[in-house]
Amino acid sequence: MSHPHPELSTPPPPAANGLRIVALGGLGEIGRNMTVFEHAGRLLVVDCGVLFPETEQPGIDLILPDFEYIRDRLDDIEAVILTHGHEDHIGAVPYLLRERPDIPLVGSRLTLALLAAKLQEHRIRPVLREVKEGDRHGYGPFDVEFLAVNHSIPDALALAIRTPAGLVLATGDFKMDQLPLDGRLTDLPGFARLGAEGIDLLMSDSTNAEVPGFVTSERAIGPVVDEVFRTAEERLIVACFASHVHRVQQVLDAAVANGRKVCFVGRSMVRNMGVARELGYLDVPDEIMVDVKDLDTVPPDELVLICTGSQGEPMSALSRMAARDHQQIRITERDTVMLASSLIPGNETSVNRVINGLTRWGARVVHKGNALVHVSGHASAGELLYVLNMTKPGNFMPIHGEWRHLRAHAKLAAQTGVPEENIVIAEDGVVVDLVDGQAKIVGAVPAGYVYVDGLSVGEVTETSLKDRRILGEEGFVSIVVGIDSTSGKLVAGPEIHARGAGIVNEDFDAIIDRLEDALRDAAANGVNDHHQINQVIRRTVGKWVSDNYRRRPMIIPVVVEV
Amino acid sequence: MSHPHPELSTPPPPAANGLRIVALGGLGEIGRNMTVFEHAGRLLVVDCGVLFPETEQPGIDLILPDFEYIRDRLDDIEAVILTHGHEDHIGAVPYLLRERPDIPLVGSRLTLALLAAKLQEHRIRPVLREVKEGDRHGYGPFDVEFLAVNHSIPDALALAIRTPAGLVLATGDFKMDQLPLDGRLTDLPGFARLGAEGIDLLMSDSTNAEVPGFVTSERAIGPVVDEVFRTAEERLIVACFASHVHRVQQVLDAAVANGRKVCFVGRSMVRNMGVARELGYLDVPDEIMVDVKDLDTVPPDELVLICTGSQGEPMSALSRMAARDHQQIRITERDTVMLASSLIPGNETSVNRVINGLTRWGARVVHKGNALVHVSGHASAGELLYVLNMTKPGNFMPIHGEWRHLRAHAKLAAQTGVPEENIVIAEDGVVVDLVDGQAKIVGAVPAGYVYVDGLSVGEVTETSLKDRRILGEEGFVSIVVGIDSTSGKLVAGPEIHARGAGIVNEDFDAIIDRLEDALRDAAANGVNDHHQINQVIRRTVGKWVSDNYRRRPMIIPVVVEV
Repeated sequence: MSHPHPELSTPPPPAANGLRIVALGGLGEIGRNMTVFEHAGRLLVVDCGVLFPETEQPGIDLILPDFEYIRDRLDDIEAVILTHGHEDHIGAVPYLLRERPDIPLVGSRLTLALLAAKLQEHRIRPVLREVKEGDRHGYGPFDVEFLAVNHSIPDALALAIRTPAGLVLATGDFKMDQLPLDGRLTDLPGFARLGAEGIDLLMSDSTNAEVPGFVTSERAIGPVVDEVFRTAEERLIVACFASHVHRVQQVLDAAVANGRKVCFVGRSMVRNMGVARELGYLDVPDEIMVDVKDLDTVPPDELVLICTGSQGEPMSALSRMAARDHQQIRITERDTVMLASSLIPGNETSVNRVINGLTRWGARVVHKGNALVHVSGHASAGELLYVLNMTKPGNFMPIHGEWRHLRAHAKLAAQTGVPEENIVIAEDGVVVDLVDGQAKIVGAVPAGYVYVDGLSVGEVTETSLKDRRILGEEGFVSIVVGIDSTSGKLVAGPEIHARGAGIVNEDFDAIIDRLEDALRDAAANGVNDHHQINQVIRRTVGKWVSDNYRRRPMIIPVVVEV
Repeated sequence: MSHPHPELSTPPPPAANGLRIVALGGLGEIGRNMTVFEHAGRLLVVDCGVLFPETEQPGIDLILPDFEYIRDRLDDIEAVILTHGHEDHIGAVPYLLRERPDIPLVGSRLTLALLAAKLQEHRIRPVLREVKEGDRHGYGPFDVEFLAVNHSIPDALALAIRTPAGLVLATGDFKMDQLPLDGRLTDLPGFARLGAEGIDLLMSDSTNAEVPGFVTSERAIGPVVDEVFRTAEERLIVACFASHVHRVQQVLDAAVANGRKVCFVGRSMVRNMGVARELGYLDVPDEIMVDVKDLDTVPPDELVLICTGSQGEPMSALSRMAARDHQQIRITERDTVMLASSLIPGNETSVNRVINGLTRWGARVVHKGNALVHVSGHASAGELLYVLNMTKPGNFMPIHGEWRHLRAHAKLAAQTGVPEENIVIAEDGVVVDLVDGQAKIVGAVPAGYVYVDGLSVGEVTETSLKDRRILGEEGFVSIVVGIDSTSGKLVAGPEIHARGAGIVNEDFDAIIDRLEDALRDAAANGVNDHHQINQVIRRTVGKWVSDNYRRRPMIIPVVVEV
């Protein structure tokens, strides 16, 4: 089993008859999926998503793949294929199109509609190429066949990519619900046919590779939702992902069956469900819909709100309700709240806070911890074994997962008989070449995080984040001194201010004298350049804070020449 | 069911024949347990623990209960009774003793030994009063009987507190393992006897009130640990809590059975296991112990390391191993790591990071997600029902839990027949009076967070934390100007510096002119006091940053008079 080493370096030029595969995101993490395929000097990009920041990336809005690897070769890109419409697969497209707006975007109907709505907000008019399962199209030297897969959003696709280097099956995100609500099954017969043809490399979704067994059908949620509707005392509030059309459909069906009116709350929920409804993916009788501004006209026991915020996002309507901070909606003990979604790793604390907040006001909270109101969108180990056994790949590369998931999936592949030397565990930036039927790691390219913060992309660096972490943990102390530009003597200040350091300004009286002494000594010893004066200030104040408070705030000397 | 309202205010004086109960921690949160009982002007404190900070309390080391409520009445305290030796029950004792060092501390043998070791580090010589199950002692007007309870640390106690106001049973933390490793069962016959006598108020551990069914016996972990020992390729590393004597004992037993030597790693693990061993709570053959400095002398397949870090604490040995940042221990694919502990809510992300880190280097990681290597220390709903039914309390107050747990436990009490009007859900600071057999909420007192940061206690305020959060998310921009003290004219600067704001210093060239103009205009309009000049700077720079970067760093004007 090959896996990357820290000493991996720039790869050799690609072999003429080979296929080069570089993931710029999605390997070693769940998010910002983006894979670049290269053959005969041309590029095919599969997915272009975002990663959501964690606490060690404070203040960051989004994390993008680093486009540096392809920045000089944007004109070589034949197309970007989007496997489905989730943010971690399409969210970075607007940023890639800023660099070359006319890259053809390929995807299914719903995927492109969700992408178009997003691009419209970015004021980009894209080149869209709609495809569907069963289609087969050429993009330069890449011959791509599209296969249906079932996932937690409709209209997802797997890709069979053929080049002279061989046949690659990339599953995209998928599961294998055998009774899907829309009847659209993961195309296992298609996978089997490709297996018979000979799959040189299988790239398969690893998210749930650690989870034994099989994912319960989405259909199983219906009766539970119905039961919650029947037992809700008054108002019902359902939070789920704004892209989970089938989940929302089940709530709508229950609303119809139980005579409740429905109100969509939140920008992304309103936008996505509008798109889904327009394209016929969502079936909503007009007469049950209520606009948020008309909420007061409906008695609470005839109402269901469908909103986002199921991950405890601090600014979401649901979080504001939980904190009794929402203008229209005041939670009471007659309310029932259903969190009909997964709990994405990293969001446990914020979801717990929402549940506690709602519970504090007496609401009944139904969530995946106490009822079957969620099933995963990703195939479990049992299902992944089916895929491995039906496709019999020559080489295997687990994708879409953290290290624990990639390793677990690699182990499953080995158990089904894929030879160890043909299993490639790569991480972001690792270069994998498929040549003469053998996949192997040949080097690595940069694939670091690119941060979006406000309007800037890539300007907030790891250094900024390190500063933020220090400032956020310890605060700062700033010391301003005015120095005579010729004599180097102190003529104004020191003025000392602290924020977030847990030191009140009066406390600094104790250090002013000592600091003046230190500066006088320094001037007497001929110290007069800013850098050296800064050092004197930093040392004197830093030591005093450390001795007296055992803390290490950022010490910021500012020397002003007068 | 009564529960606190935001408008709760200062309570009336306590009734002469009543018992007043005020939790200063532990209600509405899991941690810093501390309850003050008052009768006839005297106080009895039960537990005095710490809460560990979450991400919204950046830089904080510990959170204490606010002692303000009892600060003027320290001499009225008859004793502090510690139910068991966990940090969330004993951790704040050193800080309380700073205010009155001679408060008698009452607890079982192991509890007091762990507390004494902690107090020694704080250089405090306490007054210790050892008790054991079956004992009954008077502390002023409080007649306290001690009962054995089983928990995830040996020697835990429940308390039956008798005053003329009635009989209160406070369970402390407990579970009801029916086959405990030390044979020490939760004293259900004792609970039943008290029930027959007539319990006026039951205060019972709510941590697992949402979890249906029963907790598996600690004993069930033994065979799993043994299996991990037998299948470990080479080195074995076990992480668990430094207080979980029974869990460590099972690892030691497996080490003996499998011929491995044992090394304790980490200060708290070495200290606590030393105490437990000395007092006979832990059985360790001398000949299997290895000191950490002699690790190299033992072949990896004959070694087990027992360390802390099971919660992904960033500075722990385990986290450093996962990041390949540990001096002595370099993880390889021949290592097996077992996380034999719970995953405390809030630590999910850091534990996931540790698992991914270890997995990246190829280690096999056994954890509660893939093997039975942990059982909870707290009774589940099934067990809580037993306690409610056996004690038949006149009133019920759920303790030790977040809102979701308190509500769930209250519901269990109602289901067993406790009348709704006799169930009191309180949160920290809520004042509950038990008078004439009826418990009710009569007011509230301050019970906010007291932060320990470095050497300071209570000096870091919510304002400091708010500053830290802004600084941590957005960084800051500081603008220093030198102003002529008489004319108000700009004579030095503006000097602009940013940290963590994602703005490089050169970018500010664009704003310098505009800022100089604004300051000149202000001076021309007679603006010369610092406050107004600050406002001009803040407005000008803040708007520019917002327009150009759509960010809101802290803007810090510094005006130096020259």
